[in-house]
Amino acid sequence: MVRRRGAPGTNFLAVACYIQPLESIFRSRMAPVPAPPTESLRNCGAEIARVGAELAAHGWTPATSSNFSMRMDDSTIAVTISGRDKGTLTPDDVMAVGLDGKPLDSSLRPSAETALHLQIYRRQPETGAVLHTHSHNQTVASRLFAHRGVIVLHGWELQKAITGYTSHESRLDVPVFPNSQDMADIEARVDAWLERDQPLYAYLIEGHGLYTWGRGMPEARRHLEALEFLLACELDLKRLGGIP
Amino acid sequence: MVRRRGAPGTNFLAVACYIQPLESIFRSRMAPVPAPPTESLRNCGAEIARVGAELAAHGWTPATSSNFSMRMDDSTIAVTISGRDKGTLTPDDVMAVGLDGKPLDSSLRPSAETALHLQIYRRQPETGAVLHTHSHNQTVASRLFAHRGVIVLHGWELQKAITGYTSHESRLDVPVFPNSQDMADIEARVDAWLERDQPLYAYLIEGHGLYTWGRGMPEARRHLEALEFLLACELDLKRLGGIP
Amino acid sequence: MVRRRGAPGTNFLAVACYIQPLESIFRSRMAPVPAPPTESLRNCGAEIARVGAELAAHGWTPATSSNFSMRMDDSTIAVTISGRDKGTLTPDDVMAVGLDGKPLDSSLRPSAETALHLQIYRRQPETGAVLHTHSHNQTVASRLFAHRGVIVLHGWELQKAITGYTSHESRLDVPVFPNSQDMADIEARVDAWLERDQPLYAYLIEGHGLYTWGRGMPEARRHLEALEFLLACELDLKRLGGIP
Amino acid sequence: MVRRRGAPGTNFLAVACYIQPLESIFRSRMAPVPAPPTESLRNCGAEIARVGAELAAHGWTPATSSNFSMRMDDSTIAVTISGRDKGTLTPDDVMAVGLDGKPLDSSLRPSAETALHLQIYRRQPETGAVLHTHSHNQTVASRLFAHRGVIVLHGWELQKAITGYTSHESRLDVPVFPNSQDMADIEARVDAWLERDQPLYAYLIEGHGLYTWGRGMPEARRHLEALEFLLACELDLKRLGGIP
Repeated sequence: MVRRRGAPGTNFLAVACYIQPLESIFRSRMAPVPAPPTESLRNCGAEIARVGAELAAHGWTPATSSNFSMRMDDSTIAVTISGRDKGTLTPDDVMAVGLDGKPLDSSLRPSAETALHLQIYRRQPETGAVLHTHSHNQTVASRLFAHRGVIVLHGWELQKAITGYTSHESRLDVPVFPNSQDMADIEARVDAWLERDQPLYAYLIEGHGLYTWGRGMPEARRHLEALEFLLACELDLKRLGGIP
Repeated sequence: MVRRRGAPGTNFLAVACYIQPLESIFRSRMAPVPAPPTESLRNCGAEIARVGAELAAHGWTPATSSNFSMRMDDSTIAVTISGRDKGTLTPDDVMAVGLDGKPLDSSLRPSAETALHLQIYRRQPETGAVLHTHSHNQTVASRLFAHRGVIVLHGWELQKAITGYTSHESRLDVPVFPNSQDMADIEARVDAWLERDQPLYAYLIEGHGLYTWGRGMPEARRHLEALEFLLACELDLKRLGGIP
Repeated sequence: MVRRRGAPGTNFLAVACYIQPLESIFRSRMAPVPAPPTESLRNCGAEIARVGAELAAHGWTPATSSNFSMRMDDSTIAVTISGRDKGTLTPDDVMAVGLDGKPLDSSLRPSAETALHLQIYRRQPETGAVLHTHSHNQTVASRLFAHRGVIVLHGWELQKAITGYTSHESRLDVPVFPNSQDMADIEARVDAWLERDQPLYAYLIEGHGLYTWGRGMPEARRHLEALEFLLACELDLKRLGGIP
Repeated sequence: MVRRRGAPGTNFLAVACYIQPLESIFRSRMAPVPAPPTESLRNCGAEIARVGAELAAHGWTPATSSNFSMRMDDSTIAVTISGRDKGTLTPDDVMAVGLDGKPLDSSLRPSAETALHLQIYRRQPETGAVLHTHSHNQTVASRLFAHRGVIVLHGWELQKAITGYTSHESRLDVPVFPNSQDMADIEARVDAWLERDQPLYAYLIEGHGLYTWGRGMPEARRHLEALEFLLACELDLKRLGGIP
């Protein structure tokens, strides 16, 4: 019913680094030894700050919750430093880490939740941006559907905003994983889901909000905006007594 | 109880092209062979972009959903190109198509849903603007009332915002048609409704939002704003257990 | 339990015309024959336009609904011309009428609902401003409580925002009158309420929104803001199953 | 399960006066006799005005409700003058009072609710800022949970936004005290709660909104934002029928 996203590859660098000037893409292909990606980090930081301000304006990042990341190249990710107000981010609030979680600048400490971002970049290498938000609807839906472990979206035209979906008649599963202060617990849940060969475009953590992603920031944002809308609709149908 | 809108005719051009300078109206009356209406398209594009930004700010156009159009002249419609973010439209995101759906610039492809816009322009020739939005209330109401096929509005003062309505005691029917990825299915439903000689000011598609229109953009926007408000009220009365 | 507002009188002119410069107050006291109050109308128009933009930004004036007025002097009221978008008012959208409803500029036609404004200015002469809005909460509450004819507010600290109320333990009655397209019907309901010597700070019309007022525009706005808040709370308590 | 906040002391002055220039901190340590803290009051007034505008923009301070304060030094508090619109505060709307409630400028009268602010500064001396707001969710929750006397928050990741909380598995109690027009009644309830040696980060007054605080304004705002979010979630779970 649903097409999986195409295998990563050919046009991968161009997608992941869509705000990187051509020159720096050329340079990174030429240079196998990664030098500190200062310009790329600044570009990603600026993009993350811009998106953060917009998401915060929607009220989706209360009280310094939420974190955002973008792929800089094959092995490096730009990610927000923990504890900053997501509505007033600047490029200085974004740091670079390797896919293994090691910070490129050792004086900075990435947030614990960075592990969940990196897991997606490793397991779905076409991923160019990951967004974790904490909206009212996401948080309430995660509590309400935790006992089922999944929210099944069906019959909504806006499912087509998720890349690969072409009809409201398709079925879009958003798993709900139990919360834990140990990220390894959550990583294990995500791994188990993926190992059952099920499509995964987003997941909720109980009482803790949503993770979603895309090949670049525009796609990640579109996925986030569509899922927020669809969760709000599902909750409201429930408030209204369900579809007769 | 309700007056139908007057037959199209006399002041049609002036209404449909209300942002067109007098000179260009004169020109289009003189010239039976349509030349590419560059200035008119630019004017309509600017108006559509302005309205799109306002509707997007209300959250009624999530994730590149929604499309908007304006009549340029008897046989030409300006319509948004598919897939653009409705909050950041520019005149370049709007293209011209004939009433038969053929693009005037063959390098652009109109969205599939353009067919639903054109159907309204053909069947209600006094129409000057068509708006399709995808708000939370429209989408939830469309799922909730789909089994009845219609939402009956009655007793609301704001029904008077719909042209032709003069009392809260009138009855305003908004049909809810099943969704389909084949626009011809939806067109057939609209045709069937109109052939039963029922008034039609707007319709919902199940899980997919609202279509409404007016003799010009201001009337179309007023109809949209009023219907959004009335659907929200109907849903809330239901949440509150209904009128005792 | 509740103090009625003090009798009108002494500082009446200063209150009613609080944006009128001292010089023009002096002039109007000197001149018993009313000349067209151009400067006062312009001042009131500017104030009404400013307030209208703020109320529209809250979404309380959908689709050209709502109207606003201010007292210019003992016998003249500035009131919005019917049918204008309340979010983009200018002083030119405001006209002057006598307390009998006669327009000072006979080329302009006041809206039918002006009669309800004038009734308040005549019956409560200390009134300096009247606001009629059409918010979601006002409209839904008016339908839900219409069968009782009144909404009783009790136990809310914000009741103290209504002039004369000093405790959450007081009781604030907001009557709900049936809607009519004949203003005389609604006027008769208001008269009947007042003749039973009941306090009246605001009233709802079924399916049609709220009227409230104050000695000047700031008090009228405070009353409106407080009542909108309290109606929203009452509705939500009902959605939540009521106070256990 | 939960760590109490560290005892006040060492870095207290630096935290409480975080917008005070170093020079003035040095001066206040040197000078045991307090001179009128003009510059500090102006700084606190500017900060309170900025925060007030942001809280008002969220709709959390309807109709001149709410009040805010900041600690200026060991024995002086800057607090909003009663009755001002919290969305348009200037430093002139903020006055200085001693911990005993006596105004430093005897021509100004602090609001009655100032007593509740001072109680917190006295009993939890590490406190640098107190915020009292009156949002829809706070007000509705306070009515709904008044009969229990407490709202128990549990299972929400955002509990970690409260200083000292490190897990969603902790339990965060927000007491709900009965409203009174005599502040001494409410003070006695707060005292009784604290004397049972229970942690207290915030409390609701029935029908009257929330008090919360922090070591400085940023912490107080984070606590407010998190509690507003969590109360909204609790209410919505209830609307949705509760966790299955």
